[in-house]
Amino acid sequence: MSRESDLEKLVEMIKEIDLCMLTTVDESDELHSRPMSLNRDVDEEGNLWFFTSSNSHKASEIERTPNVNVSFVDTDDHRYVSISGTAELVSDKQKIKELWKPALKPWFPDGPDQPDVALLKVRMTKAEYWDGPSSTIAQAVSFVSAIVTGKQFEAGENKKLDGLG
Amino acid sequence: MSRESDLEKLVEMIKEIDLCMLTTVDESDELHSRPMSLNRDVDEEGNLWFFTSSNSHKASEIERTPNVNVSFVDTDDHRYVSISGTAELVSDKQKIKELWKPALKPWFPDGPDQPDVALLKVRMTKAEYWDGPSSTIAQAVSFVSAIVTGKQFEAGENKKLDGLG
Repeated sequence: MSRESDLEKLVEMIKEIDLCMLTTVDESDELHSRPMSLNRDVDEEGNLWFFTSSNSHKASEIERTPNVNVSFVDTDDHRYVSISGTAELVSDKQKIKELWKPALKPWFPDGPDQPDVALLKVRMTKAEYWDGPSSTIAQAVSFVSAIVTGKQFEAGENKKLDGLG
Repeated sequence: MSRESDLEKLVEMIKEIDLCMLTTVDESDELHSRPMSLNRDVDEEGNLWFFTSSNSHKASEIERTPNVNVSFVDTDDHRYVSISGTAELVSDKQKIKELWKPALKPWFPDGPDQPDVALLKVRMTKAEYWDGPSSTIAQAVSFVSAIVTGKQFEAGENKKLDGLG
C-alpha cells in the first residue's frame, strides 16, 4: 500500500475506534494516561483535536512537555494504533466554535463561549498500527517481533508511518 | 471502598482486560506505545511482568528512561486503567521459567532458555481507573472533570491509587 492509503487507513481506523488513551508526562516525569474521545476530529493535515479545559492538569503538563502519545485499542477486532506527537493548547474561539458539538454541553454548560473551553491539538510525528486476526496472546507477542525486526508479522499487519505533517 | 479493595479491583480489572498499551520514551524523547499481553502476571506487590526480547527496542528505551505508562481499555464495558510506573529488564532464568507459558513458543522457539528471552518488570507508582456506564462521549469528557476536580464523577467511578509498592 502507498503511504497515502496507509494514512487514509489509519485515519479511518481512529475515527471508527474514537475512544483513545492520551499519555502525557507530568511534573515528576511520570507518564500517565486518560481516556479521551476523538469525535472524528482529525483534520486534513493529520492533526488530532480534543476538547479540554484550559485549567486541566494535562494543559499544564503539555506546556512543560509537549510530547504525547495517543493510543487507540479495539480488542474485538484486534486493531491497535500508536500515535506519537506534540500537543499544544489552542484557545482560538473560531476553531472552538467550528468543532463544538451539543454533546459537550454537560461539561461546558455555558457552551463554546465558556472561558476555560480549549482545544488540545496533537500534531502527529509518528504513527504505527496493528491490524491482526483473532489469536490474542499470539498476536500480542508478535508485535514485539514486528517492532524488533521491522518486518511485517505474517499473521497480521504492522505499519509504521514516519514524519507525518 | 478501602485502598486494599481498590487495588484488588484494579488488579482484577487488568487481569480480565489483559491486552494493554505500553508507552515508553524513545531516544528522541518521543512517546510511543505498543500492544502487550499481561497474561495475568501481576504479583502480590502489584508489579506487572511482561515477556520481551532483550534485543527489543523497548529494552533499550527503558534503560535510558525507565518511566512508562501501561493503559488498559475495555470499550465494551467502558473500563479504562492508567498505570504509571518504572520498568526494568529482568533476565533471571528462574523467574522466566516460573512465568513461562507454552503459548510463547512461536516467538521464542527455543523456549525459556533462548538467550534473548527476558522479562519487563513494571513497578506501579500510580494507578488510576475509570469504570463507567455506557454513554461513551459523555463519559470520556467527564474524565477530564474528574481529574481536574479530584471529585468522583457521579455517572461513573474514577479512582486514583498513589504510591503503590
